[in-house]
Amino acid sequence: MAGNSFGKLFRVTSFGESHGPAIGCVVDGCPPGLALDATRIQRALDRRRPRVVGALSQRSEPDEVEILSGVFEGRTTGHPIALLIRNRDVRWIDYSRLDQLFRPGHAEYTYWHKYGINDHRGGGRASARETAVRVAAGAIAAAWLGQRHGVEVRGWLSRIGALELPFRDASQLAASPLFVADARFEPRVEAVLADYRASGDSVGAEVALAVGLPGPLAAGRSAWQGVLGQALMGVNAVKAVEFNECDEGADALQIRVAVKPTPSVHRPRRTIDKAGRAAVLLTRGKRDPCVGIRAVPILEAMVWLALADLVLRERALHAGALTGGG
Amino acid sequence: MAGNSFGKLFRVTSFGESHGPAIGCVVDGCPPGLALDATRIQRALDRRRPRVVGALSQRSEPDEVEILSGVFEGRTTGHPIALLIRNRDVRWIDYSRLDQLFRPGHAEYTYWHKYGINDHRGGGRASARETAVRVAAGAIAAAWLGQRHGVEVRGWLSRIGALELPFRDASQLAASPLFVADARFEPRVEAVLADYRASGDSVGAEVALAVGLPGPLAAGRSAWQGVLGQALMGVNAVKAVEFNECDEGADALQIRVAVKPTPSVHRPRRTIDKAGRAAVLLTRGKRDPCVGIRAVPILEAMVWLALADLVLRERALHAGALTGGG
Amino acid sequence: MAGNSFGKLFRVTSFGESHGPAIGCVVDGCPPGLALDATRIQRALDRRRPRVVGALSQRSEPDEVEILSGVFEGRTTGHPIALLIRNRDVRWIDYSRLDQLFRPGHAEYTYWHKYGINDHRGGGRASARETAVRVAAGAIAAAWLGQRHGVEVRGWLSRIGALELPFRDASQLAASPLFVADARFEPRVEAVLADYRASGDSVGAEVALAVGLPGPLAAGRSAWQGVLGQALMGVNAVKAVEFNECDEGADALQIRVAVKPTPSVHRPRRTIDKAGRAAVLLTRGKRDPCVGIRAVPILEAMVWLALADLVLRERALHAGALTGGG
Amino acid sequence: MAGNSFGKLFRVTSFGESHGPAIGCVVDGCPPGLALDATRIQRALDRRRPRVVGALSQRSEPDEVEILSGVFEGRTTGHPIALLIRNRDVRWIDYSRLDQLFRPGHAEYTYWHKYGINDHRGGGRASARETAVRVAAGAIAAAWLGQRHGVEVRGWLSRIGALELPFRDASQLAASPLFVADARFEPRVEAVLADYRASGDSVGAEVALAVGLPGPLAAGRSAWQGVLGQALMGVNAVKAVEFNECDEGADALQIRVAVKPTPSVHRPRRTIDKAGRAAVLLTRGKRDPCVGIRAVPILEAMVWLALADLVLRERALHAGALTGGG
Repeated sequence: MAGNSFGKLFRVTSFGESHGPAIGCVVDGCPPGLALDATRIQRALDRRRPRVVGALSQRSEPDEVEILSGVFEGRTTGHPIALLIRNRDVRWIDYSRLDQLFRPGHAEYTYWHKYGINDHRGGGRASARETAVRVAAGAIAAAWLGQRHGVEVRGWLSRIGALELPFRDASQLAASPLFVADARFEPRVEAVLADYRASGDSVGAEVALAVGLPGPLAAGRSAWQGVLGQALMGVNAVKAVEFNECDEGADALQIRVAVKPTPSVHRPRRTIDKAGRAAVLLTRGKRDPCVGIRAVPILEAMVWLALADLVLRERALHAGALTGGG
Repeated sequence: MAGNSFGKLFRVTSFGESHGPAIGCVVDGCPPGLALDATRIQRALDRRRPRVVGALSQRSEPDEVEILSGVFEGRTTGHPIALLIRNRDVRWIDYSRLDQLFRPGHAEYTYWHKYGINDHRGGGRASARETAVRVAAGAIAAAWLGQRHGVEVRGWLSRIGALELPFRDASQLAASPLFVADARFEPRVEAVLADYRASGDSVGAEVALAVGLPGPLAAGRSAWQGVLGQALMGVNAVKAVEFNECDEGADALQIRVAVKPTPSVHRPRRTIDKAGRAAVLLTRGKRDPCVGIRAVPILEAMVWLALADLVLRERALHAGALTGGG
Repeated sequence: MAGNSFGKLFRVTSFGESHGPAIGCVVDGCPPGLALDATRIQRALDRRRPRVVGALSQRSEPDEVEILSGVFEGRTTGHPIALLIRNRDVRWIDYSRLDQLFRPGHAEYTYWHKYGINDHRGGGRASARETAVRVAAGAIAAAWLGQRHGVEVRGWLSRIGALELPFRDASQLAASPLFVADARFEPRVEAVLADYRASGDSVGAEVALAVGLPGPLAAGRSAWQGVLGQALMGVNAVKAVEFNECDEGADALQIRVAVKPTPSVHRPRRTIDKAGRAAVLLTRGKRDPCVGIRAVPILEAMVWLALADLVLRERALHAGALTGGG
Repeated sequence: MAGNSFGKLFRVTSFGESHGPAIGCVVDGCPPGLALDATRIQRALDRRRPRVVGALSQRSEPDEVEILSGVFEGRTTGHPIALLIRNRDVRWIDYSRLDQLFRPGHAEYTYWHKYGINDHRGGGRASARETAVRVAAGAIAAAWLGQRHGVEVRGWLSRIGALELPFRDASQLAASPLFVADARFEPRVEAVLADYRASGDSVGAEVALAVGLPGPLAAGRSAWQGVLGQALMGVNAVKAVEFNECDEGADALQIRVAVKPTPSVHRPRRTIDKAGRAAVLLTRGKRDPCVGIRAVPILEAMVWLALADLVLRERALHAGALTGGG
């Protein structure tokens, strides 16, 4: 249950397994009257997809999103917005051998051990694929906060392995398929990725997020920091979150998020089978050598979702104060 | 927001407008390992559909449900179960004249007045069609409570207009398309429906629900009565709910629910248009002369959902007590 | 858990047993800047107390409320408001014999059977005394809705036993210790009470509530009806709730609530002891012959709480629309 | 609202301002039958209080806790447990000058600017004092998880300023008033504190937490990591949280939490007054030179609370699986 829904007032409930018929979510609590169409959400999803064949995962799925409800004549109605993404590239053969073996570092063993259920199809619910849903929902939150509150959130790759990556230029960042904010570093990042891809291993990374807070959030820093912390810590592969030293009430905030190497790599790894016997697993599923890159838009989305929820809570409590009411 | 989700632990979030692309829901919190397939849910949906052409609404939609997630190899996985029902029979022409007029007794005027949005397609979100989703979700709750806890919930039509309808026989009830529990009364109910259909008017009704409580619910009567009350009162057209006089801790309970006449009838009715001018509206949309009949499986579903949520809350707090833990 | 907290945004969490050290609650979500002091809350509590010695319960407890937090210099701060009412009149002797016997119609047997715990001190948590907390919290909701939104809620005794009691005059209602809205009926109500008091039995009643809805609630009738239904159905001794036939969007609403006779009466009643043996119980605890009278301010309070929560939800979703935002 | 309550099933709602009449909380959802008394909670509170006069804050308040409800004859009843701590050492004079000035790094300016309310009494709700409540509630969670699930949580000071502090010995940690796990380092920590105390400045620190997870939590790492992340990030003065690299399903986990220097120091600092004019503020309130020390039991408490909530969620969803049910 924990982990399937997020937010109290701007509430996202996600569903779907990576190799089931579809993934998607319901966004309940989005205010009415907001301009919204599938194209806008699709753009956010495309940004999450690997854009450089060869460097990242080769899964070619287009992630086409359909809006099932909550939007009428190009505007939100205030009712729940359901988003649907059909899974098309379901190649069971890649995963069929996992029927008897458990992948190290995945949740499968724990789950099977406890409940006797092993959805061996590509990580099932815990798959990185589920994050597409968060990106799609985040695009709605971003549309609302951007249109109504002028809020900005900007993420970039600030480290890969030991290589620090400075922020230099927003336009370079926008053009970078690897979310690198200084174009001079892009070839070096490509080189790191190529190395790890060749070795079948994976590498950790750090993502920086510059967040323009939507006005001084009245709940106080500890409250919104807790909500943001949960949003970011709840993303698979996140290992640490650091908030910068801004004074209370400042309107910009910088967050740094450390992302672990992906657990699915192409080198042989020791595991156990369902009978508890030692076994060697060679995963052939297509995986990123660095999930930190794909994590950039995912973490941005989580910030948008957390902020949208916080703003709605704020105006429930204080809307009247803004207009002299209470 | 209120009204789109129900339950704290066995949680249903519904979405969809009656004349949009689809309706559906996400059921989060259903325990793993439960035998479940689309056929079972479909059966519940079919039960809600008018089975006697001529007596009830003629909308011919088959309400085909698809399970998008949360079920693997015929069993629930413990992850969110998403259900999808595509809207097929979307005849806009029936509703196009409503672009400028408001239907008396519907929520449209309120909504338009406040937010400037009039989703004039058949009542939009407030449509009785949304209740199909509740029936589908209720079928999951029923499967779990039935398989695991031996709970039974049985609803029947106990009054139509002034005609009282006694309970006589469960097998007669099972065979009755009008949810009448004494077959001798079926022709009289048909006659009442025919009269109201002919006059274009509609009639109120009462539904009785016999509920076998799943063990003495520890939270105490006022708690579960509150949760059941919300579940039943939150159904469109419900006017009153009465709980019987059973002693605290008894394991059967009887509830009576009064259902209003449907507001959409075929007689000309006075209304206003968007400019505030008086107008006369003759609705041609297909409606039931008595929504109380269709309400039977809907109210049953709401009871199932409320009980499933209450049982999960119970075992969160007291599971240990049952096994000597705490 | 269910039953201890109420509301999503205007959220009340109550605590305390009737014969423990204190009862109280925390009200989280009350907007800042509202004029509030203990006197206002005390007035609401006093209204709930029996004012006619002889007619109602003789428990003489003054129910003095203390505000522990959330109010500074006479105004709410937006932080949680904690209310505390010490229990003074704790006469254990009245209840000591209940250590081995269970009172018919109370929750004690269920609870003991399941968890082995019998808090035999006067009904413990399920006692009517817990409702003092709801009245106190309701006074805060009433202050806010009254001051900011001009909402009115008015309850009166509309039936006792078979005696129907019409609404006649608000000022007569205000002066009536028995919440009778037509002073000519007051002696007859007194007579009914005296009869039941003499016989040691108790009588059912009906409470009417006239509710001015705070503007057309956008969530739609089924949503707010569900929330109000839970609020009212969750009060001990409530048996049925009926909403009147107002059109969607109308700003007045009438609710009728049927209240059961109190289960604690002075006649000998059959019960069982902890060993499961049949026993006869003669309760000497002081109880009302008609809890329907005391129910009037309690049910009013529940309506206030439900409305405050609904209004906050509304403005979270729609506040922007009211000011051109969204 | 965010920040005042924590947890979904093991739910804590806290209240109280540092210089109002009292602070406290309601813990709703604690299972029945658990051995609990005020002494146990008091011990946890005492552990949080400065034990070395001279090194830490000199506020001498004894933090005496009273259990108001939910415990009967030494055992929890399953009903809400209310805890009350009266504020005794309220020296307004220390804070009276803050009526017109704002303290840098505190939430006061933001709050006043937005709502026109300045509760200038010692930080009001945002004060570190509110954390006493979390420690008290955490002691209940610890009692339950310890008694029923054998879970252990152990925190220690792992860094002060630039000085790294290794873990050496649990018994040395238990005896250390500064939460140092290697007694040889204690004099050096004392020296650092003395330096900062003399200069009127404050120093950052790091707390390590060794957490024995209560069985493999089925919800998956991202879910419980998110919940723990919120719990820890929501503590005032926390700047960063890092989870160690344990494999999914491992039963021990290490967390590192970076704590900022306290914002209230004794050196003159620039601020503004209510008219917006520049001013210099010399705070005389008693503050710690290093809140990282006091943070140890607070962060432990937050871990306990998060785990208790996660275990209850787990057993709501899966309790049946453990006993063959579902």
